[in-house]
Parts: sequence; C-alpha cells; structure tokens
Amino acid sequence: MNIGDTFSFRKTITETDVYLFAGITGDMNPIHIDREYAAGSQFSKPIAHGIIGVGMLSGIMARKFPGGVYLSQSIKFLHPVFIGDTITALAQIKEIEKDEKKLLITFRTWCENQDGIVAMDGEAVGLRPI
Amino acid sequence: MNIGDTFSFRKTITETDVYLFAGITGDMNPIHIDREYAAGSQFSKPIAHGIIGVGMLSGIMARKFPGGVYLSQSIKFLHPVFIGDTITALAQIKEIEKDEKKLLITFRTWCENQDGIVAMDGEAVGLRPI
Amino acid sequence: MNIGDTFSFRKTITETDVYLFAGITGDMNPIHIDREYAAGSQFSKPIAHGIIGVGMLSGIMARKFPGGVYLSQSIKFLHPVFIGDTITALAQIKEIEKDEKKLLITFRTWCENQDGIVAMDGEAVGLRPI
Amino acid sequence: MNIGDTFSFRKTITETDVYLFAGITGDMNPIHIDREYAAGSQFSKPIAHGIIGVGMLSGIMARKFPGGVYLSQSIKFLHPVFIGDTITALAQIKEIEKDEKKLLITFRTWCENQDGIVAMDGEAVGLRPI
Repeated sequence: MNIGDTFSFRKTITETDVYLFAGITGDMNPIHIDREYAAGSQFSKPIAHGIIGVGMLSGIMARKFPGGVYLSQSIKFLHPVFIGDTITALAQIKEIEKDEKKLLITFRTWCENQDGIVAMDGEAVGLRPI
Repeated sequence: MNIGDTFSFRKTITETDVYLFAGITGDMNPIHIDREYAAGSQFSKPIAHGIIGVGMLSGIMARKFPGGVYLSQSIKFLHPVFIGDTITALAQIKEIEKDEKKLLITFRTWCENQDGIVAMDGEAVGLRPI
Repeated sequence: MNIGDTFSFRKTITETDVYLFAGITGDMNPIHIDREYAAGSQFSKPIAHGIIGVGMLSGIMARKFPGGVYLSQSIKFLHPVFIGDTITALAQIKEIEKDEKKLLITFRTWCENQDGIVAMDGEAVGLRPI
Repeated sequence: MNIGDTFSFRKTITETDVYLFAGITGDMNPIHIDREYAAGSQFSKPIAHGIIGVGMLSGIMARKFPGGVYLSQSIKFLHPVFIGDTITALAQIKEIEKDEKKLLITFRTWCENQDGIVAMDGEAVGLRPI
C-alpha cells in the first residue's frame, strides 16, 4: 500500500439503478424519476442521484481494504451523471498516517464519465487496524 | 426559509435496502452481506452501508428545495447503522448567502438512530436560483 | 406425463433483470454492466448472464412438477443472450425411470432467442415421489 | 494460474435474493415463496433457488478471469440452501488445456453452507484467449 496507488470500479448507471436508489432513500426528486420534468429542466433529460457514485467509491475501498472502517467522506458534485453514463469510480491513496495500532488512510475519491469528465471529486478517510 | 429550519425523513433500514444497495454500487463488503463474517466482527452483526443515510439526506433536500442543485456534501461516520435500525435523516439550515441570481444554502445534515444516537454528521451546500 | 412432452416459458430479458441478477450473485462482469467495455468486446453490446436462462429452466420444471426435487443440471452456453432478447426456455421429457417410490425424470433443457437460435442446451434430472 | 488454485465468494442468501430471483426467472415454486407450503414440506421452511449458487459460481470466474468465456456448467444439487444460509461459492482449477490461441480451463465448482456442508457440486469449463 503506497501513496499514489489507485483503485477503480466501472459501471453503466441505468434507470434500474436510479429507480431502486429512489426507493431505498426516498429521494424522489423529479429530476431523477420524472421524464417530463427532466425534459423541461436545464439538463433536458433525467440525471442519476450523485450519491450512487459515492456508494461506488465506498465499494472500492471496501474491496481493497477489507476490515477497514470508513471514517469520513467529502464530495463536490461538478457535473451531472446522466442515466446511461458509464461511470468510473476512483480512489487514490493520498496520505498514510501510522501509529502503533492503526493506519489512517486518506484517499482522493472521484468519479469520471465515459468522456473523462469529472462528475464529482472529494476525499475519504479510512482506518485500518494493524 | 430561515436559519434553524429543520427537515427530516425517517425510515427503517431493512436487509432489502442493504442488498439492493450492494447491487447498485458493487459494495459487497462482507460486513454488509455475510452474517457469519459480521458475527465475528467488532459489530457482531451486519451493518448497513453508511451511504444509504447520505442518500436519505439528499432526499430531504430534494423534497424541500425542488429545483435546487446539490453542490457538496461532507459527512463523518460516527456510529454504525445496523440492519433494522430506524434512521431519522435531518437537514437544518445553517447559513444562507444571497446574490442577485441565487441562494447558496448551507445545511447541517445528520442521521440519528431510534435511540437518538448520531450515526453520521456533516454539512451540505445547495444552490437555488431566484 | 410422456416422453416428448415439452414445457416452456418465454420472457424478454431486460436490463433490470441483468442488474438485479448482478446484485444477487455478485457477478459484476463488465460484459454485463459496463456498456463501454461491452461496445469494445467481441459482442459489441452488453450480454445477459447465461445463468438467468438456467433459472428460467428450473422455473418451468417447478411449475409443471410441483413437489419435485431438482437433482442436477448440465448446460452448454452456445450463443450470447443480449439484453432485450426474448428468450424461450424449454424442457422436454427425455426419459422416465420408475421404481416403487419415485419417478426419475430426465429433461432436455434449452433456451432459444427470438430468432430461434439456441443460446444454451443441456440436461436436467428431477425426482418426483409417487 | 495453476492447477489447484481456488477462488471464492461468500454471501448470506436472504429472502430479498430469493424474491428477486423468483421475479427475474419466473420460478415461483412454492418451496421458495410460500411459507405455509414450505412449513408442511420435507424441509419445514423455505429454501432458496439452487441456481442462485450457480450464479455466484459464474461470478467468481468472471472476477478472476475477466475477458473469459463461460462454455459449460454441470451441477448436482446435494443439500438444500435455506434462506439465511451463508454460502461460500468455490471454483478450483482442475485442468488447463492450451493451444496457440486459447486456454481451456476446467474448474471444480461447488457451494458450501456455514456448517461446511456441500450444497451443490459440479464442473465448469471456461475459455480464455491468449
């Protein structure tokens, strides 16, 4: 585990994902589930919940650091994720602090769409016992 | 819309929510989907993905500020959300900045379980055209 | 119940089926859930998990032989099932062995797409108490 | 990649998995979705669709051999998977055949429950271009 190591997961975000996520969270924002509303919005079509991308980010860290604890996440939403976009979630090790019992790992975490546009960008901190 | 206004949404987080969320995000951390592993962990039983709570928070803001744009979210995970917990997601207006075209609203955002324990706490910023 | 009897079930396999199946099984193969990857593959577009067809086959036998026990299944995957294909799952009685307590029934089991192309072909054995 | 290499994935099979799988495949066998029927059956309680385990097996191979093609699967169902069982799906390389263009890999594939009982056992063949 070294600074600069980067992990990723890629997936096309479908309407199924958006509808299930709306049901799980109660986020029934019409921009996600109302095509008529979305057609008249600044985006012209439905967009996915940005938090789906954040969930993909937490998933990468879960896979790469099993047994780790997710302490915090900050994220800026920079560009919409449209339904049908293929999103790459990326986590890059930025800093490692170590004491006798644990590692504290800071990641840059971001999501890019199929055109390389950064849809969201932020930082996560995880703890790993040693 | 005034500073201090608080909005909330409450829901019991079920195994169904956790399993669907795992499929949407690819977050198959055994702490969420493997009861044997979870039984041997520090938590003794499966915990929900913390990001489900963040999704509930974005949902509150979506309902109360339709047409708003979600700019950023930061969150600290303070206590696990167990499957079966009833979670109240809360958003409280903390600051309002206004210029000629828009309102910039900062919320304190947090989730509490059925015992009033704060499971996660952070801040969100939203923009609303005027 | 005679040799040659054939039972079937037909369904269009949607993206929803594929995404839910990925979550249930953890099979996040990019050929199923990443349109960019699939576009660059030999198939040019996303394909469904072949095992969905096998599940449809077991479903036919469940409906026609309630109380039966599914002993074994073998299957060869011959042609991809694309998302949007309408798949007919078929089970045909091939052999019946009978003793004092039970029937042992061997089926040819296969799936065809909307163009009559056989996507998978194999054999299942079921037991039915008498 | 060597003979004897073993790959695995573990997950608790929940009612959510069984109900979604029933919807995807149309396998509405009462032994899976009718608690009253299941209570009066030889198993005394609902069992999961065995094919869910087969899907987990295909998922392991997908993760470990991206770009591979799944040619065939045979499986014997030896012991029921109950709802709530924690199932480990395992794939072990048994044989590798190589020619100029491809590898043909034969796996032993099986699923065990939390008590180490083998619920299903069989063989899969995959092809990997070289």
